[in-house]
Amino acid sequence: MAAQAGVSITTAWKVANGRPDVSHDTRRKVQAALIDQGYRPPSKSPRFTRLVEFVVHEMETAWVLEIIKGVYREAATHRAAMVLSELGGAITPSDSWITDVVARQPLAVISAFAVPTEDQRRSLAVNGVPLVAIEPAAELTDQTPWVSTSNWNGGLAAARHLIGLGHRRIATITGPPDIMCSRARLDGYRAALDTAKVPVDAELIRHGDFLVSGGLREGRALLALADRPTAIFAANDHQAMGVYQAAREIGLRIPADLSVVGFDDLPMAGWLGPALTTVRQPLHDMGAAALGTALELAKGDPPPHNQIIFPSELVVRASTAPPPDRAEP
Amino acid sequence: MAAQAGVSITTAWKVANGRPDVSHDTRRKVQAALIDQGYRPPSKSPRFTRLVEFVVHEMETAWVLEIIKGVYREAATHRAAMVLSELGGAITPSDSWITDVVARQPLAVISAFAVPTEDQRRSLAVNGVPLVAIEPAAELTDQTPWVSTSNWNGGLAAARHLIGLGHRRIATITGPPDIMCSRARLDGYRAALDTAKVPVDAELIRHGDFLVSGGLREGRALLALADRPTAIFAANDHQAMGVYQAAREIGLRIPADLSVVGFDDLPMAGWLGPALTTVRQPLHDMGAAALGTALELAKGDPPPHNQIIFPSELVVRASTAPPPDRAEP
Repeated sequence: MAAQAGVSITTAWKVANGRPDVSHDTRRKVQAALIDQGYRPPSKSPRFTRLVEFVVHEMETAWVLEIIKGVYREAATHRAAMVLSELGGAITPSDSWITDVVARQPLAVISAFAVPTEDQRRSLAVNGVPLVAIEPAAELTDQTPWVSTSNWNGGLAAARHLIGLGHRRIATITGPPDIMCSRARLDGYRAALDTAKVPVDAELIRHGDFLVSGGLREGRALLALADRPTAIFAANDHQAMGVYQAAREIGLRIPADLSVVGFDDLPMAGWLGPALTTVRQPLHDMGAAALGTALELAKGDPPPHNQIIFPSELVVRASTAPPPDRAEP
Repeated sequence: MAAQAGVSITTAWKVANGRPDVSHDTRRKVQAALIDQGYRPPSKSPRFTRLVEFVVHEMETAWVLEIIKGVYREAATHRAAMVLSELGGAITPSDSWITDVVARQPLAVISAFAVPTEDQRRSLAVNGVPLVAIEPAAELTDQTPWVSTSNWNGGLAAARHLIGLGHRRIATITGPPDIMCSRARLDGYRAALDTAKVPVDAELIRHGDFLVSGGLREGRALLALADRPTAIFAANDHQAMGVYQAAREIGLRIPADLSVVGFDDLPMAGWLGPALTTVRQPLHDMGAAALGTALELAKGDPPPHNQIIFPSELVVRASTAPPPDRAEP
């Protein structure tokens, strides 16, 4: 029957088996004939392909999308496919996750925010699969390499920018207290206030969830205070959007009545009205570096250090200005 | 040596090979001992795992993230892993993409906006891999099933909402002219104007790129017209954000001076200031339906129709209001 395509049975068989030594035109003719004749493919043979695994806690934010792009593009340069998993908001992968990952025999595993358990890390090690964590939500007490940004310095730069504009009632909405990057950003904020001799008011320190909803909730609470802040360091861009909404609800103008600083510099930061002053972390580069390090490890080349810290950088846009009324302490 | 972990050599061997008939505690002890003793894993054996492939044109927008979630969660219910690829903005995958996909022997391939070529679709068919396209940017002339939303009805609903508020100078910024969903939304807009006897002014019909930048560029041009529109149907939420920025630049208030309607209802739509009136398409459900259909096809169950159209729905928020001055025709 394959003779109808003007090629031999052997050639048809080669095409059906995906052999590379067949010209494009021949492959096309054979494929057309096979389809016409209702060809059914044979049962599957084993695969030998290059996979990398990327696991995130959730796929709710542009933060995750930026890191996905970085990991994906690094994988593509190594002609490896990226398997993406999310944990529905959980930090710890399930037992079925590790079972399936090990079965897929990936070249490497990258986690972002999510953190495999000690047992899971041991399973990966026993199976020769290197793991690199990006901004792990929990502390890694073993030698697992991890990639982060200078969160403390970013918090310091954000608060110093506000102090430099003349603000003294400066609030912060950081992330959950058990997440290390939340603590580091908060500590940087404190350090800026302390070194500038601005009193730290416990009432002005709040914990959100790194989502818009948390920024809105805590922003409303802060703006309802009798002596409300003139500036809020929102600790990520999503929380800053929540603060924008809280300010709009009560008719406060940004930055005339309230200055706002975010953290991340997601694409949306430049589109907000007004454009958001924020602390940029190079999420794309962090994703790429994590996978690059893991693939070096897979070749037996350990990195010089088990932490890779990218610098953060203040990006001043239109959401910050001097306070409406300088309430000196 | 494995005796140090208090288990037999056979048990250690089972653990090293990922056998399921070993208790959690035993596995843990053996793994710890193996790591301590500098164990090197054996060379890899073939994988037998379930993969699905998802290819998108680019990972730049929340639109893509919503569909990714839908495909991922459907894959997870079938305990299949999702391999994610992007084409750097191109619509057509490369030859290396199809070679690698076929080598990975996935259960199914889903494309969003991106469209595999006829040759690539034939390759998949020959290899018994079903393909389902989500909102394909190019027309599919064969029997490839595809998933979409009622774009025409959405354009109609958006423009009718504006007409109902009293607008007559209604502009639209649709997507690129060669993309079918752009045309459908534009045609729905035209139908609303025609049936309401509102003249269609060619000057008020613009083509963007479905990105914020296109909405900003075309929004600026529209708002610079001597007889500027009182309402803009931006045809997606990203372009609506660009229109917001164009309006801010010249001090126009939304909705008092300008009404804006988007399309998609991405999470950001509700967070914008003011919250965006938009046409909701169920992107999550569309991703899940595409993969569900493909997995049915993989079992030999063809869908009853080769198109699956989800309804779109107008969501009225705060970005639309009656025009500032009713310029009746």
